[in-house]
Amino acid sequence: MSKRIYLDNAATTKTATEVVEAMLPYFTENYGNPSSVYDLAATSKEAITKAREQIAAVIGAEPKEIYFTAGGTEADNWALEATYELLCKKGNHIITTKIEHHAILHTCEYLEKNRGARVTYLDVDENGIVKLEDLEKAITPETILISVMFANNEIGSIQPIKEIGQIAKEHGIYFHTDAVQAFGQVPIDVDEYHIDMLSSSAHKINGPKGIGFLYIRKGVKIRSFIHGGAQERKRRAGTENVPGIVGYGAAAERAARTMQERTEVERKLRDYLIERITKEIPYCRLNGDPVKRLPNNVNISFQFIEGESLLIFLDGAGICASSGSACTSGSLDPSHVLLAIGLPHEIAHGSLRLTLSEETTKEDLDYVVEKLKEIVARLRDMSPLYEDFMKKNK
Amino acid sequence: MSKRIYLDNAATTKTATEVVEAMLPYFTENYGNPSSVYDLAATSKEAITKAREQIAAVIGAEPKEIYFTAGGTEADNWALEATYELLCKKGNHIITTKIEHHAILHTCEYLEKNRGARVTYLDVDENGIVKLEDLEKAITPETILISVMFANNEIGSIQPIKEIGQIAKEHGIYFHTDAVQAFGQVPIDVDEYHIDMLSSSAHKINGPKGIGFLYIRKGVKIRSFIHGGAQERKRRAGTENVPGIVGYGAAAERAARTMQERTEVERKLRDYLIERITKEIPYCRLNGDPVKRLPNNVNISFQFIEGESLLIFLDGAGICASSGSACTSGSLDPSHVLLAIGLPHEIAHGSLRLTLSEETTKEDLDYVVEKLKEIVARLRDMSPLYEDFMKKNK
Ligand SMILES: Cc1ncc(COP(=O)(O)O)c(C=O)c1O
Ligand SMILES: Cc1ncc(COP(=O)(O)O)c(C=O)c1O
Repeated sequence: MSKRIYLDNAATTKTATEVVEAMLPYFTENYGNPSSVYDLAATSKEAITKAREQIAAVIGAEPKEIYFTAGGTEADNWALEATYELLCKKGNHIITTKIEHHAILHTCEYLEKNRGARVTYLDVDENGIVKLEDLEKAITPETILISVMFANNEIGSIQPIKEIGQIAKEHGIYFHTDAVQAFGQVPIDVDEYHIDMLSSSAHKINGPKGIGFLYIRKGVKIRSFIHGGAQERKRRAGTENVPGIVGYGAAAERAARTMQERTEVERKLRDYLIERITKEIPYCRLNGDPVKRLPNNVNISFQFIEGESLLIFLDGAGICASSGSACTSGSLDPSHVLLAIGLPHEIAHGSLRLTLSEETTKEDLDYVVEKLKEIVARLRDMSPLYEDFMKKNK
Repeated sequence: MSKRIYLDNAATTKTATEVVEAMLPYFTENYGNPSSVYDLAATSKEAITKAREQIAAVIGAEPKEIYFTAGGTEADNWALEATYELLCKKGNHIITTKIEHHAILHTCEYLEKNRGARVTYLDVDENGIVKLEDLEKAITPETILISVMFANNEIGSIQPIKEIGQIAKEHGIYFHTDAVQAFGQVPIDVDEYHIDMLSSSAHKINGPKGIGFLYIRKGVKIRSFIHGGAQERKRRAGTENVPGIVGYGAAAERAARTMQERTEVERKLRDYLIERITKEIPYCRLNGDPVKRLPNNVNISFQFIEGESLLIFLDGAGICASSGSACTSGSLDPSHVLLAIGLPHEIAHGSLRLTLSEETTKEDLDYVVEKLKEIVARLRDMSPLYEDFMKKNK
């Protein structure tokens, strides 16, 4: 097989071998439905209990505050819709930010269009960080929920979650955070940060796809999102995805165990990559906060270039990366996150996200920088915008 | 290991080895996010396309009419809630039956309580079959949806789906069927049966837990249930559970390929088991239709007995079975299905469901009958009701 350097770990990760091994017995041996009464079912039930404990430990929660879902998206939908249904008689106002994942933004739009919600989308500063004064100002007596992501999936900026939680608490407003990119990457303590609800997804931390959880603080009485059987203490119906849950538990335990060492190495490599690119390639800039930043996130805009073409050439060189543009929706609109931090359309279009893993080496990054230099130069040679610019600046 | 005879295949099934083998490469090798643009992502995308084709073929649908969900419950919730939201301005009336799974019943209750829906719950006859005249009579100009399960999970009764579909079609009403127990067990053709939406869940047919699908006929414009990214042609957000989807495709293909031979054997064994139990154990009766019945379902009520105790003793003998009572909800209410077919509470309480698989042998069933005779006799010896009854009938 030809060379492959996978630098799209914010999109998804390789399931760790030890995680797959933990899951395997639950397909063909311990396959019992945990809701049944016999011995085989008890084995499944115990496995779920263990996974719940493993996950709760990572964020300082109680196991019974963890509710398994099909992923981060379902957890986000649940937190927003169910809180809204519970509290819309008290108030219809939700505060979130302009840089949330679509799982939050599109759910807010749904609630606005169909359910009478009013949503404030907070601006962020040029590094992608929410301003606490803006948040304070946005709060009204109708505000029932603040939902601010822990760390951004495109530019890696980490929000002042503790301060936001404090503000929410002082006003008696529920605080939800989408921690899909942060869980297992940065330390989280739901009590210290005053978090009432938290979403996460296993496949971002070397767990399997199709399983996530919503942390719901004890006492928060939101309704079910999916109705049916009495699973997950009557809050999330559907036969439990036992292998997925077991895999998530194993991945969470592993992520917590390796966090300090892993992210230390990643941070160094991240900064090495940022420094080489920004020094050696002209007309580019780092997006996102240089310090308050996920340990594995690099996001750079290259002037005079289309992100899509960049990705295709990188793929040709065996490098898996992602652009800032919302390519998955089939639209060519530039990323809402990059626009929110103030990038003009044409610069937002030329953005590249590289997200590292524990397997990434310095040699990989050296190879990436060399290839990137070639490809950027080549694409600029083909760009009429670049030609114009060079003529003007001669 | 001691003997184990697994007769709870309606609750869940063992994931087939060939299914697990099909899934494995998608954890650690082909782990790409299908929404990305590089080669590794294309592999995931192709795997999903293949699974969609494998599944569509089983029910005579087009691949693009299959939308993956986290299971049967989510598919049921989606069908009901989204149809209701789309059409509630036209009418607020839904028709379903008293014997649906809780995924349907509790969603209907939610729509009644919170969203202004009016729901008619049709009675069934003593065999658990919907009466078509009742359905015709229940239809009003406000009726927007008919949802009738294909086959019942407790007593195995198969509904006259084709006739129901015909009635729905004549009245221009959407028809949804919960086929979680029927898919892969009995032939289904969505065109012949005039089905507009159909729910299914992989783990009932030797596929993995945590993956299902909703078939949505081309032209039915229901909204998304889970909002976010543009996955599943913008209708179901969330990173695709690629290994789960691949496993579902493999399980569906396998179920269709083995259906005729497998169910022929199962039907014979089922009838053998029914005959032996009803002949050799006094004061018991078969629940559900003797003919229009899932090939692997046996459901019997024993007078003077508690289903829960029966299960515990059977478990002690290595036999995994299920009772008719809603034990999973922690309530001691007898099954709503058994009450709907007219059983008195005390008889509904003494019910036992045995659901066979392709691995079940005649020897297994002979062992089960012998154990069952012993256990029933023993429990009756301990029952004051039975003592009274025997005194009176001396
Ligand atoms: C008829 C029926 N509908 C829906 C479901 C729900 O499926 P799942 O638990 O896989 O979500 C089941 C099984 O539990 C069922 O038997
Ligand atoms: C910040 C954030 N929220 C939510 C999600 C949705 O998670 P999933 O696709 O696993 O449902 C993602 C990833 O796609 C994400 O990065």
